[in-house]
Amino acid sequence: MTDPLPTGATIGILGGGQLGRMLSVAAARLGLRTHIYEPGANPPAADVAHAVTTADYTDTDALRAFAQSVDLVTYEFENIPTAALDTVEAIVPIHPNRRALGTSQDRLTEKTFLQELGLTVAPFADVTDAAALEAAIAQIGTPAILKTRRFGYDGKGQARLTSPDDAASALDSLAGAPAVLEGFVSFTAEISVIAARNPQGDIACYDPGENVHRDGILHTTTVPANIPARLRTDAVLLAARILNALDYVGVMGVELFVTPQGLIVNEIAPRVHNSGHWTQNGCTVDQFEQHIRAIAGWPLGDGSRHTDITMENLIGDDMDRVPDLAKDPKCALHLYGKADTKPGRKMGHVNRVTG
Amino acid sequence: MTDPLPTGATIGILGGGQLGRMLSVAAARLGLRTHIYEPGANPPAADVAHAVTTADYTDTDALRAFAQSVDLVTYEFENIPTAALDTVEAIVPIHPNRRALGTSQDRLTEKTFLQELGLTVAPFADVTDAAALEAAIAQIGTPAILKTRRFGYDGKGQARLTSPDDAASALDSLAGAPAVLEGFVSFTAEISVIAARNPQGDIACYDPGENVHRDGILHTTTVPANIPARLRTDAVLLAARILNALDYVGVMGVELFVTPQGLIVNEIAPRVHNSGHWTQNGCTVDQFEQHIRAIAGWPLGDGSRHTDITMENLIGDDMDRVPDLAKDPKCALHLYGKADTKPGRKMGHVNRVTG
Repeated sequence: MTDPLPTGATIGILGGGQLGRMLSVAAARLGLRTHIYEPGANPPAADVAHAVTTADYTDTDALRAFAQSVDLVTYEFENIPTAALDTVEAIVPIHPNRRALGTSQDRLTEKTFLQELGLTVAPFADVTDAAALEAAIAQIGTPAILKTRRFGYDGKGQARLTSPDDAASALDSLAGAPAVLEGFVSFTAEISVIAARNPQGDIACYDPGENVHRDGILHTTTVPANIPARLRTDAVLLAARILNALDYVGVMGVELFVTPQGLIVNEIAPRVHNSGHWTQNGCTVDQFEQHIRAIAGWPLGDGSRHTDITMENLIGDDMDRVPDLAKDPKCALHLYGKADTKPGRKMGHVNRVTG
Repeated sequence: MTDPLPTGATIGILGGGQLGRMLSVAAARLGLRTHIYEPGANPPAADVAHAVTTADYTDTDALRAFAQSVDLVTYEFENIPTAALDTVEAIVPIHPNRRALGTSQDRLTEKTFLQELGLTVAPFADVTDAAALEAAIAQIGTPAILKTRRFGYDGKGQARLTSPDDAASALDSLAGAPAVLEGFVSFTAEISVIAARNPQGDIACYDPGENVHRDGILHTTTVPANIPARLRTDAVLLAARILNALDYVGVMGVELFVTPQGLIVNEIAPRVHNSGHWTQNGCTVDQFEQHIRAIAGWPLGDGSRHTDITMENLIGDDMDRVPDLAKDPKCALHLYGKADTKPGRKMGHVNRVTG
């Protein structure tokens, strides 16, 4: 247990996308600096960071220099190569810890961990080859979803099986990557809990948000979620147990399915989460500042919500709506400064005050 | 009338203090970049800016290169040398305009402008030498305050006269600078209005905040101000008239005295203002984003307040209170990342939610 990070200290962030950008702004609000490490040129986070390293995750010298220039390291996405993390961690602490990252990087490890914690997950089975897939289908049935164990996000690395006949094509589409077959869950709502824990062991959760996806990408998050109070409490308690079990430090996004039988954990993300962007206009301390507070060893914000919000992602051509959204006094715009608009690319989001 | 600034455009900011820092963050939120021009090393705004030029205001080459790298220029303080502004304006537009800046840079010009607009100001007289001061005292009486016409802020460049006998020492303390003698105003409250106007001529004002000063520096701003509804409306209308008269583009701080005879305009600041920091946690669009929206030709936020706030400046050793303030769920911290704590130095502020 070290002292809280003082004013002027520097937090290293692996990844320079919009999450790194909003983390940088939150760090600045607390008088802290950020140093972004990102392979791509002109990352969104560079506009608001004290320092930027443009280098690949295989560049050991650059990783070492980066680690030496900062007081601790965090990350804005979970698919960071293990060797890069080893290089950094030899020099400076990484929060959230490697166990949390390792658990969430691998769907099989993640589901096993959650199940062992006594939480409900969708039926799942390890799929290493065609024979294993056949056995998995026999066990779980169809419809089901075949997902790569690693490197999946926003619906990528997934294939849907509507019947056992889809097995071969589903396996082909994953190109031999180790995979997990997940049973199809019939849910009435998707919700997520943004939870935080600091090194002192304090935990604070935001109210669950209700998520709507479109084309496999988060479309909207609405708070409060339209679910019974009992499930809201369940969701928060369950999320807190996950953080506690991992001795977690930072913010985590916990995605849940609401079913007639109760809550099923879909997945966990060891970082600030798109479904927590509503906190920027709904809470005194938003998820980005909460993450910085947690990893810096500061007291956590209490997570209470002062305003009802619907967050909507602005994807691709949604940017054409910005002039109209800017006129709406109920809309808070958050744009990422990305030069090129592409279909499916997250360009910004809008938090609409609803109550 | 040009088109609104698009995503990725760059705003130049003259001055790299905490106001420039918070303007940079607001620009980023709208997908815009900032380039800070500041003579001092490691200015607070540099941590969150896309680019920084460290050069003096007399460095014409640096000013030209700065102006050529940006789409428009704004400023975070009003005491910028005229020659520097001339150099910049030959290349790129400056908002708010030179007339607003020139008016507010000079107390005599400012008071004359306000009076000609039909607004009430404290009795004042031009003081060029001892004879003029004697005449001014005969006209205005004592107590009175002798203020330099230019380069005053946070109570600097001022001398109080409790009787005519103080004339010589007051004049000495201003070291020959052109000055204005102001009659003492007996007020029941100090308030300020943060007002914005865009190139389209739209105007939006925030609710007046009530200010308390300590040692000549703003200590707290509380919204709503504890004044009659009629005066709140008067204050906003009066501020809007000032912006309109100056064909102003940007955010302006208008400081007012509340007296039994009505409102007296104390001074105007052609920039975001310390007494508007409460908007960060009280409004969907804060004064910093409002300023960026205005100068970028975007629609303005409507200025409505969703939360009651008391803003308190954290000055010098107030930083020792940060660990306790960080624990208070009602407190939103905003620290400026300044390395050295000095007496009288603004290190940050806290917005306390009060309702």
